[in-house]
Amino acid sequence: MLYNKITEEILEQFRNIAGIENVLIEHDLLEKYAHDETEDLHYYPEAVVKPANSEQVSLLLKLCNEHFIPVTPRGGGTGLSGAALPVHGGLLISMEKFNKIIDIDERNLQATVEPGVITEVFMNAVADKNLLYPVDPSSKGTCFIGGNIAHGSGGPRVVKYGTIREYVLNLEVVLPTGEIIWTGANTLKYASGYNLTQLMIGSEGTLGIITKIVVKLISRPLHNILLLGSFPTNEDACKAVSAIFRAGVTPSALEFMERRGVEWVIEFDHLQFDLKDGVEAFLIIEVDGTNMDTLFAEAEIINQVLEENGCTDVLFADSSAQKEELWKIRRTMAVSVKSNSVYKEEDTVVPRAELPALMHGIKQIGKSYGFQSVCYGHAGDGNLHINIIKGSMSDEDWNTKLKSGIQEIFELTVKLGGTLSGEHGIGLVQREFMSLKYSEIHLNLMRGIKEVFDPKGILNPGKITPDVN
Amino acid sequence: MLYNKITEEILEQFRNIAGIENVLIEHDLLEKYAHDETEDLHYYPEAVVKPANSEQVSLLLKLCNEHFIPVTPRGGGTGLSGAALPVHGGLLISMEKFNKIIDIDERNLQATVEPGVITEVFMNAVADKNLLYPVDPSSKGTCFIGGNIAHGSGGPRVVKYGTIREYVLNLEVVLPTGEIIWTGANTLKYASGYNLTQLMIGSEGTLGIITKIVVKLISRPLHNILLLGSFPTNEDACKAVSAIFRAGVTPSALEFMERRGVEWVIEFDHLQFDLKDGVEAFLIIEVDGTNMDTLFAEAEIINQVLEENGCTDVLFADSSAQKEELWKIRRTMAVSVKSNSVYKEEDTVVPRAELPALMHGIKQIGKSYGFQSVCYGHAGDGNLHINIIKGSMSDEDWNTKLKSGIQEIFELTVKLGGTLSGEHGIGLVQREFMSLKYSEIHLNLMRGIKEVFDPKGILNPGKITPDVN
Repeated sequence: MLYNKITEEILEQFRNIAGIENVLIEHDLLEKYAHDETEDLHYYPEAVVKPANSEQVSLLLKLCNEHFIPVTPRGGGTGLSGAALPVHGGLLISMEKFNKIIDIDERNLQATVEPGVITEVFMNAVADKNLLYPVDPSSKGTCFIGGNIAHGSGGPRVVKYGTIREYVLNLEVVLPTGEIIWTGANTLKYASGYNLTQLMIGSEGTLGIITKIVVKLISRPLHNILLLGSFPTNEDACKAVSAIFRAGVTPSALEFMERRGVEWVIEFDHLQFDLKDGVEAFLIIEVDGTNMDTLFAEAEIINQVLEENGCTDVLFADSSAQKEELWKIRRTMAVSVKSNSVYKEEDTVVPRAELPALMHGIKQIGKSYGFQSVCYGHAGDGNLHINIIKGSMSDEDWNTKLKSGIQEIFELTVKLGGTLSGEHGIGLVQREFMSLKYSEIHLNLMRGIKEVFDPKGILNPGKITPDVN
Repeated sequence: MLYNKITEEILEQFRNIAGIENVLIEHDLLEKYAHDETEDLHYYPEAVVKPANSEQVSLLLKLCNEHFIPVTPRGGGTGLSGAALPVHGGLLISMEKFNKIIDIDERNLQATVEPGVITEVFMNAVADKNLLYPVDPSSKGTCFIGGNIAHGSGGPRVVKYGTIREYVLNLEVVLPTGEIIWTGANTLKYASGYNLTQLMIGSEGTLGIITKIVVKLISRPLHNILLLGSFPTNEDACKAVSAIFRAGVTPSALEFMERRGVEWVIEFDHLQFDLKDGVEAFLIIEVDGTNMDTLFAEAEIINQVLEENGCTDVLFADSSAQKEELWKIRRTMAVSVKSNSVYKEEDTVVPRAELPALMHGIKQIGKSYGFQSVCYGHAGDGNLHINIIKGSMSDEDWNTKLKSGIQEIFELTVKLGGTLSGEHGIGLVQREFMSLKYSEIHLNLMRGIKEVFDPKGILNPGKITPDVN
């Protein structure tokens, strides 16, 4: 589809709506908005506008809808699927001024926040009131809560506390045509027609722009125990994962890391960490709760399961500092791997017990295509981040053969009952693979839903469904 | 819209598809399918077909779509919003033959079941393997798991274990046009485009017919403690509810019951129960887990909160038998209230701490219209079932004035941040009130989604959205 360009006249209207200081058009100011954290992709918008409230977003969308100008909403810019990239140019709406925590309602254990609040800032604000908002992606220090919702983001605690879908109660959304709606109610249960709140979650800014958020909060667990298990092979570690749940324990985190990833973190961050020979993989396992006796009992069960599953060493973190150090290894892994090589990241998810088969398959596929990979992720959820490393692969092979390799990985994922993305989204970079998992009938339902919300197709075009602008 | 009638020729095709013994047309055989548990409503289908597999459902829907014949899917017939009533006649598809538990996957803690499995049968089957499927509506002994999903059903344990949305991973669905899709993947996380699984949940059989279900299972808690708190007023009991959560405890059930409801259960069920003077309301509170010390500590915190909130008596159930007796009171309440008077049930839900205001308002509205009410429900979720009792209200007032009273209750609910239904759905009987909560823009999105899935409008017409057949 051929969209219209932003004219000088429309720019003037942007300035009238949001204020002259909140409209950017200079190339060097646009640079920041031309990429997210998805590999090395750059797409420049024609203009960036930073609105301050829902009404301004509404006016911007009405205007762009009328003039057939593409609009890309952007949160913290930490996305890994390119969903915030303005592939068709046009207007980029940055939500950075929506940074207020409107209300933390301690009576109802709910909070109302704007989408541009940094996730960790919000988590700390509720923690100050002894409450927990448990959805903490690795990028929590820079990502926005609105972007988390738009992408169905996860993080390590989903395994115990449930997905972001369980915490988002209600959303104020500006539709592509400019109307403002609340998608649901501020209630823990909802059986009042098609659930538009749930439909917005994970829709990657293609159905509307989130402008206010009501989330559920829960009590903060007082204590936790953190373990690090070392394994001679990846597959041993992966096998231990489902054994832990089967033993009746639900950890508050269960993270997998390959040795290579840990090595690169040590190098990148100049960490002191005793990496023993013969160890190929690690599990970080946390249990949390209110009663230390319960936690000790759970940790003992985990310890036993680990031993039965080939674990050669179990480290119990004995201080907050040591816990923080172990978490730092896990959280720094993405950036240290990425600083080390040209890479391509995939976010596969399978039923938990299929992880050993997935891991085995990935390495086999790598061998046949000549690429290496570093894997880590939320093993408790069956969610594995695969970083395909260019390493010694030739530029030509990387540019021509890699896609077939990725396709094989996705085919394996689907065969194992899984799907393309667990928490990063489809965005720009995975849409070409959607038909590996979804039939045309299925994709047409998605296209139909898109058209209901966005009849002219102006909002975040070029994302999720293939063959739609 | 004027649908076509089922001709003798089409009936013959139904028989070819599903077998002659699975097609019913005799009036007395249709009676069972002409009502659910929604007050005293009866709508006869022209024919009932009991298909045995997805392919038969697909052929039936293709045929009816082609001939513009309305189709109403039906589960266990325990619905409380009339969503399974064939208001336009036509074909009723009974899912009763879809009664197989296909697989309980202990490696992945998942199960695959057919939609016609009785919820309690499924719960018991997974309990035999020491696993828990925690979504247990009061009707669990007769309702179908497919109906639960179609309605976003809840039950007492949502308060701790989360809604049914957290447990349904993937659905096989036959679309109104006959195509068969799986809505998602068998994974705990999912960020791969619009979430059609979540869209199907609570869509009340208007977007497709569920034919297979994959759910998440969790470890079964080993122990529980059950308390019954007695209160001098409804509002005291309601106030205690949010205080319990604020004290840092998340009970596995937190149920409210009005005295009148308990009286009627005692009468209906000939129960031995010492109902003390001056007690107007009760809370049933359960905590569960793996460690008895933790549970005792939690029970002690609850006990203290109850005392601080006007509770006059706390009973600790001291045996399984006594626990079962208390649960029986709560579970029998619906049927005993309904056997006592002409009634109308509403399923309001508000933010938890607004329950006292809701309760106060309901009684005030009752006074001004001359009706009484018996309330009970999942107070921990802010979900209150209101049974409006005809009592001494004249037939004329009941038939003419009641609607305004209900409208006032819903207006109050919405004003308190709530919505029309927490777990019973909109179905036939609440659709006229939808515009109290939702704007035309919002309702048009719902209508648009319906049209994407069901362009000819043949599947379960007359439900959810007003002004759509």
